[in-house]
Amino acid sequence: MKIDVLTLFPRMFQGPLTESIIGKAIDRDLLKVDVVNFRDYTDNKHLNVDDYPYGGGAGMLLKAQPIFDAIDAINEKAPETKKRVILLDPAGIPFTQSVAEELAEEEHLVFICGHYEGYDERIRTLVTDEISLGDYVLTGGELGAMVMIDATVRLLPEVLGNDQSAKTDSHSTGLLEHPQYTRPAEYRGMKVPDVLISGNHKKIKEWQDKESIRRTFERRPDMLDNLALSNEQKKYLGEIEKEKESL
Amino acid sequence: MKIDVLTLFPRMFQGPLTESIIGKAIDRDLLKVDVVNFRDYTDNKHLNVDDYPYGGGAGMLLKAQPIFDAIDAINEKAPETKKRVILLDPAGIPFTQSVAEELAEEEHLVFICGHYEGYDERIRTLVTDEISLGDYVLTGGELGAMVMIDATVRLLPEVLGNDQSAKTDSHSTGLLEHPQYTRPAEYRGMKVPDVLISGNHKKIKEWQDKESIRRTFERRPDMLDNLALSNEQKKYLGEIEKEKESL
Repeated sequence: MKIDVLTLFPRMFQGPLTESIIGKAIDRDLLKVDVVNFRDYTDNKHLNVDDYPYGGGAGMLLKAQPIFDAIDAINEKAPETKKRVILLDPAGIPFTQSVAEELAEEEHLVFICGHYEGYDERIRTLVTDEISLGDYVLTGGELGAMVMIDATVRLLPEVLGNDQSAKTDSHSTGLLEHPQYTRPAEYRGMKVPDVLISGNHKKIKEWQDKESIRRTFERRPDMLDNLALSNEQKKYLGEIEKEKESL
Repeated sequence: MKIDVLTLFPRMFQGPLTESIIGKAIDRDLLKVDVVNFRDYTDNKHLNVDDYPYGGGAGMLLKAQPIFDAIDAINEKAPETKKRVILLDPAGIPFTQSVAEELAEEEHLVFICGHYEGYDERIRTLVTDEISLGDYVLTGGELGAMVMIDATVRLLPEVLGNDQSAKTDSHSTGLLEHPQYTRPAEYRGMKVPDVLISGNHKKIKEWQDKESIRRTFERRPDMLDNLALSNEQKKYLGEIEKEKESL
């Protein structure tokens, strides 16, 4: 996969792109990331990337020209690739796991990271997608791009060491993960549930399945609405509701 | 504000914490951030921070001990501060602007960034909050912590240069922002709407208010459900619905 990131703060990407899974994917040639400072594409002598909004208002807007020219340069450099051009913007569709899954199928992603008050509206004509990280305001699009890159790249074949891992995570199964414990069996007076050290694999699996339902029911009941529960899962849900009533 | 971050990948924070608004807030002593590698707190000679899950399953879990001891060290170093201890976890409550506003009121935040398959359940006893960045899976909690720090710190008094800015952003008003334009008035054949260069401030304000409603209605109708619209906003919404019907 090829990724270009347009930003005014390329150094923000240094740590996140060299450490952890993303850094390893780059080292193993599964991924190539270019971070482009679009200030390099300004055609005015002051290298201005922003200007006052027409009609007044607080703050500055990103000008169209540097971003249009930076995108032109990416298109000239890689004319053959099919590109998804993603604008990080609070007015975009919310980023979710299914968006990550969709992006993971692409060959070339381009992220445009804003800063300041917003974008000149004409920049939106360049993009295929406007995506928001969530219902909160960030100082710029850089962290959003990093998050989307991370969520997407870990879904690429061969990126995660353990093939199982990506599939059993919370949100991939539609349920939150059950509680998990590792050694020691007792730490600061807190014990691991007996069933998990019983060696009875059937009972362990049942406990895990039920506790996964319980956690989702207690914390994110909205997630259950979107799931077609199996008969076994429905049974657990009934038990959990009864257990709550009897408290 | 004081922030401690517990992570196995402290170098990921180098760029994000030195650039942009966060870096400036640190330079101006409005914020102090310590990034702690909790591997330094392991009490086993192999410096292991993770171990196999009881009951089997893919991947490794973060052990309780290094994180408990790292939190003890933070408490010893700053016994007087009231701390919010935040676990970055997909099973947490979703991060939103109102969570950022709440965190911005605190004096001391501690973020625990996971990695690998998950946490030993006992780690949850240490925390005041479990927060999820959104319904997607990341390789670790680091980017989530950076996002939450960014969204929170920009709300602190004096951090943003322009006092207006934080208040008029999308999501702060409950509406998406209207389209915005900056110079030139025409770029690659695309023109700025006449009203914005009319100099008629009343008309400009009406256009902005209506387009803000339109963008929210078209892209995020769910956001309108949570708002008490003014009579003027209701009028705009009616006009927008009629305009759509007549297309």
